[in-house]
Amino acid sequence: MNERSVDELRALHADFSAQYDALVARGLKLDLTRGKPSAEQLDLSGGLLSLPGEGQFRDQAGTDLRNYGGPLGLPELRSIFAGPLRVPVAQLLALGNSSLNLMHDVIVQALLHGVPDGVRPWSREDTVTFLAPVPGYDRHFSICERYGIRMIAVPMTEEGPDPEVVRSLLATDPTIKGMWCVPVYSNPSGVVYSERIVRELVSAPAAPDFRLFWDNAYAVHHLTDARPEPLDVLALAAEAGHPNRPLVFASTSKVTYPGSGVAFFGSSPANIDWIVRNMSVQTIGPDKINQLRHVQLLRDEAGVEAHMAHHRAILEPKFNAVDAIFRERLAPFGAGSWTAPAGGYFVSLDVADGCARRAVALAGQAGIAVTPAGATFPYGDDPRDRNIRIAPTFPALEELGTALGGFSTAVLLAETEALLAGR
Amino acid sequence: MNERSVDELRALHADFSAQYDALVARGLKLDLTRGKPSAEQLDLSGGLLSLPGEGQFRDQAGTDLRNYGGPLGLPELRSIFAGPLRVPVAQLLALGNSSLNLMHDVIVQALLHGVPDGVRPWSREDTVTFLAPVPGYDRHFSICERYGIRMIAVPMTEEGPDPEVVRSLLATDPTIKGMWCVPVYSNPSGVVYSERIVRELVSAPAAPDFRLFWDNAYAVHHLTDARPEPLDVLALAAEAGHPNRPLVFASTSKVTYPGSGVAFFGSSPANIDWIVRNMSVQTIGPDKINQLRHVQLLRDEAGVEAHMAHHRAILEPKFNAVDAIFRERLAPFGAGSWTAPAGGYFVSLDVADGCARRAVALAGQAGIAVTPAGATFPYGDDPRDRNIRIAPTFPALEELGTALGGFSTAVLLAETEALLAGR
Repeated sequence: MNERSVDELRALHADFSAQYDALVARGLKLDLTRGKPSAEQLDLSGGLLSLPGEGQFRDQAGTDLRNYGGPLGLPELRSIFAGPLRVPVAQLLALGNSSLNLMHDVIVQALLHGVPDGVRPWSREDTVTFLAPVPGYDRHFSICERYGIRMIAVPMTEEGPDPEVVRSLLATDPTIKGMWCVPVYSNPSGVVYSERIVRELVSAPAAPDFRLFWDNAYAVHHLTDARPEPLDVLALAAEAGHPNRPLVFASTSKVTYPGSGVAFFGSSPANIDWIVRNMSVQTIGPDKINQLRHVQLLRDEAGVEAHMAHHRAILEPKFNAVDAIFRERLAPFGAGSWTAPAGGYFVSLDVADGCARRAVALAGQAGIAVTPAGATFPYGDDPRDRNIRIAPTFPALEELGTALGGFSTAVLLAETEALLAGR
Repeated sequence: MNERSVDELRALHADFSAQYDALVARGLKLDLTRGKPSAEQLDLSGGLLSLPGEGQFRDQAGTDLRNYGGPLGLPELRSIFAGPLRVPVAQLLALGNSSLNLMHDVIVQALLHGVPDGVRPWSREDTVTFLAPVPGYDRHFSICERYGIRMIAVPMTEEGPDPEVVRSLLATDPTIKGMWCVPVYSNPSGVVYSERIVRELVSAPAAPDFRLFWDNAYAVHHLTDARPEPLDVLALAAEAGHPNRPLVFASTSKVTYPGSGVAFFGSSPANIDWIVRNMSVQTIGPDKINQLRHVQLLRDEAGVEAHMAHHRAILEPKFNAVDAIFRERLAPFGAGSWTAPAGGYFVSLDVADGCARRAVALAGQAGIAVTPAGATFPYGDDPRDRNIRIAPTFPALEELGTALGGFSTAVLLAETEALLAGR
């Protein structure tokens, strides 16, 4: 819209204002905020509600799963996910109901005890720094903020975090102890890390106790047939001489039920020993009956794939709708630049610089809740105030269309306001 | 046995040695170590294996429990346990699968952030000390050891930790920030704290951020009709001007399934706000479907009571067997002094000073696993080497009898050995 005259902009502003007033008058109450599965998706795992079934409480080895013990998790479940996550079964633990909880607890243990290869607990360092590729996931950033861990934003490229920036920061700043990574269908950009980038991340010189927090949340959450070959980050790291660098996290939160799923932790033998020792003081074991439910529901790797195909059938039209509506509503005005991810849960939208907060506020006043602008940056601070995370999975398709249409109006109004103010 | 002559002791030693050799020859493999429910007890909660049932995933308010959210836990479940635990529903959270995990995490948060009323994180103190009533629970002690928290043993009386010792330690040592308490059917002594003791604990002058870790693990685990009236520790503490002192923990681990149960946290509004703020960074919410299962299985407070009566029917004969066998085997020789608890999971046995380790070792060599001597004391250090925790719940009644008989032989042999060595 930048090339238009002031008069043209005023006419557009009047149009968009009228559309916006009509939108407000509709009194909508729609939500595009969080990456939650829809009820239709949750129905795919309805079996969990009556599994494992009367009298079913033993694993293949005959262990009574109702009792204490089994801190590593059910071997059968670990073996189902070992393939998709590219972690050997012996180095893959099936634990509680939340991978976020695991990431949090690993950071807490690193603060209080340090990690293998480290010389002291992170809390004894003057400064602990994490690299945070942006745009990224706000709950990662919240953990760092809560524990006083400094974050440095690193720009994302089409194939992962900018490797030159990462290499240079790691080489010059020994306070960098961690880096957030969502290697497959990154939150929110949808970027899949290339093998070249992963090799860079595992090989770049860094502090000996530098750790990649490899949040592989969307490893099996494809939206197209063009599936990235899963990369074996543990093998690549070992090959690069840094076997203990990656800490792999994943869960079934968006495979079965959020909150009632199973989280996984995978890493080198030394890191597994470390976490098992930590956990031995913290808990007597995970919910193995729920793990048995998951084994029965998903059966094997092919079962996971078939299950995820059903998710895709529900989600693909929603992601297509985001693209179609933005093309129809934003593109004609040159507004917005958005991703068309091949998997995961989000679309990342960049609006004109300085317009994200205003667009989100306008949408909110019209009853359309959107993830707060800035949430995809550490400290909520998007220096260009342009990135907005769109979460299209939860609303029904028709509602989604209404919400995205209304949100587009808010974006267009915010951008014309800003352009007029600048003239 | 102390009054016997050396010759009498030699004869007894020969007898016990012969019995012991015969025991070893049987090649037993029995386990009296951990407080695990038996398979028969686990069968009482068989309903959980097919609950909540197809299409059942909403709470009374209509919320879809399969999705993210609900960090405080299911109100219906919190209300079932509010009565037995004497915690108002609004101040009682239903969380993950392990109360030990909650205690651990509360200590970690206290270390990293401090607690309400505190002036700094506990990790910034030169020394943090906990009071540990002895005999006590080894997993409590392990948490302290792992985080470098110093423990001071406090002797138990018939009605709880010795209040004069506690009062005097608290008054003179401001590094004391916590105290482990199992107020009902204490692990392992079975002692029920009296109202007088509880009033002492909540009112004694102490550091402002001193906390009672009130592990109410056995609140509903009665073995007789003589049930202690539940004490409202939160109300008593508020009355005493220390509303934030008690942190109440409990779980259904020994009501339904260990590992697949639900843990509870109850405290003052200020402490609840504190833990909710901590958890908001750690997790997106507990397994609410499992909480729904528990609501459906237990239904209400009367349902819990009926359920626990079935446990009692299984457990009472086992506890009676402990008493009967020790009366038959140990009492005639004046050996052993043991508790006859009215609830809970353990019997506490004191043998002659200096004989506990040897008795446990002898039993172990005969294939009878007993909780390591010393485990009931901080740092595994029982200064008189006399206390042994007996866990009679897991073995079938007949096996239990065999194990206790064999173990009695080990005790008698250890004691005669020691007496002969001392002559």
